[in-house]
Amino acid sequence: MKGKVYLVGAGPGDPELLTVKALRLLRSADAVLHDDLVAPEILKLIPPAVHVQNVGKRCGKKKILQAEINCLMVALAASGLRVVRLKGGDPLIFGRAGEEIEFLRRNGIPFEIVPGVTSAMGAAAAAQIPLTHRYASDALVLITAHRAQEERAGNTDWSKFVGSGATLVIYMPGQNYSEIAKRLTAAGLGGETPCAVISRATTRHQRTHRTTVLDLHRSPQLASPTLLVVGEVVRLANPAAVVAEFVAPDLAPPNDALLPTALLKTFLSRAPRLGLAEEPRA
Amino acid sequence: MKGKVYLVGAGPGDPELLTVKALRLLRSADAVLHDDLVAPEILKLIPPAVHVQNVGKRCGKKKILQAEINCLMVALAASGLRVVRLKGGDPLIFGRAGEEIEFLRRNGIPFEIVPGVTSAMGAAAAAQIPLTHRYASDALVLITAHRAQEERAGNTDWSKFVGSGATLVIYMPGQNYSEIAKRLTAAGLGGETPCAVISRATTRHQRTHRTTVLDLHRSPQLASPTLLVVGEVVRLANPAAVVAEFVAPDLAPPNDALLPTALLKTFLSRAPRLGLAEEPRA
Repeated sequence: MKGKVYLVGAGPGDPELLTVKALRLLRSADAVLHDDLVAPEILKLIPPAVHVQNVGKRCGKKKILQAEINCLMVALAASGLRVVRLKGGDPLIFGRAGEEIEFLRRNGIPFEIVPGVTSAMGAAAAAQIPLTHRYASDALVLITAHRAQEERAGNTDWSKFVGSGATLVIYMPGQNYSEIAKRLTAAGLGGETPCAVISRATTRHQRTHRTTVLDLHRSPQLASPTLLVVGEVVRLANPAAVVAEFVAPDLAPPNDALLPTALLKTFLSRAPRLGLAEEPRA
Repeated sequence: MKGKVYLVGAGPGDPELLTVKALRLLRSADAVLHDDLVAPEILKLIPPAVHVQNVGKRCGKKKILQAEINCLMVALAASGLRVVRLKGGDPLIFGRAGEEIEFLRRNGIPFEIVPGVTSAMGAAAAAQIPLTHRYASDALVLITAHRAQEERAGNTDWSKFVGSGATLVIYMPGQNYSEIAKRLTAAGLGGETPCAVISRATTRHQRTHRTTVLDLHRSPQLASPTLLVVGEVVRLANPAAVVAEFVAPDLAPPNDALLPTALLKTFLSRAPRLGLAEEPRA
């Protein structure tokens, strides 16, 4: 029997913003490999018998290489298991899914991609910001600041997106708001352009800070994950910055152990000794 | 008792790509006002006692004005009903939610926004196209061609987004692919740039057509809703253009009539005579 890998989006944080399909897969998986960004409330929905592993880039002190995640996925699936690779938001945005897909294809592992609510939509919904508007913005641009900081060589020129009237959503803006403000200004945005920092959107810990490009550097350091929305549409946000009603969903995992935990544990202890397909050189 | 309006994203088409929250709200609503783009399989999940109304811009032959939709929402909620305003994809993208939100606020109607999986993510997942990629694209731009055709005065200049290396997703591209190709070329995109037309993504009727900007005008006329993905990442799509596994979900509506249909019908017949807050002049 051949296993399968499901690349699944976990949505922005609120467990009720999982798709019905994601919830079904989490409940019937043999193993779940998840990113750091996935909310703990979502991980609680996984039945206790399932092997759950944090493969986030910052898990513990140790870095897990992308190559290791790829091999782990292939090894588990090749032994006949149903593997959920769970990513925050949507799996195809800023999540390196492209590399995982390529590796799965190379190794002949069947896989399927299950889209999720991306963080921009979650944050905008919670802060009541229409991301496009007939009279204010006719395009939405999703970018990341994090990546640019990682690989200094290729700093994306944001001026391409500014002046187009598009709403900008910056994923993983980090805590260096002065730097971001500088890049936005260099790209041509006026100091009065409204923006909003949204922290832990759609969870009970959500916080929203509204400001302008000029005052962005004075923003409080809010808990990660955060997201920065920039553009005229931010003026349309609810001034009261209402936190979305948070309903603790009745989604508790079933009590009966569905899955062969012991078997899986044995397998995992032996996995390093298995001959896996090698990571292709970049 | 005061009612409430929920602006809810229905996701890209597959009923299993509804969020858990959207499904819960559809099952407990008194009335559902939905767009044309919402898949029939999703509407089937609504219990029979609920008042369901298509307020899509093309429903029947007659156009429903945005002002009428606004008034209907307010009237239903003001009479104590739970109203779901159901939009295809995510409610805050290209859906005029901004105008509906403003009207609800003006009329003091409590409301909440429930994000959904936007069509771009659904289509990309089904066609296995990573929308961003470490080595190919570090930004995602969502635009619409439809709007530009509607309001000829303000044709968005796409050159702003081209050359940035961003992946472009064009919502509602219409059937005039020659025109779109012309705009893409005028914006500076090379003829060899790969693109994909994805029709009725994530449903059992999904079809994907891969081409280039140069050959785009020869694309077949696929059934709406369609979506156009443009950029180098399209090369990474599954060459076999696999249609995602479609599972008919066990989501049938409960049999017990939860809701006061008779009451609602009576109300609706009288609605035009109620004094509603006027649509503000634009």
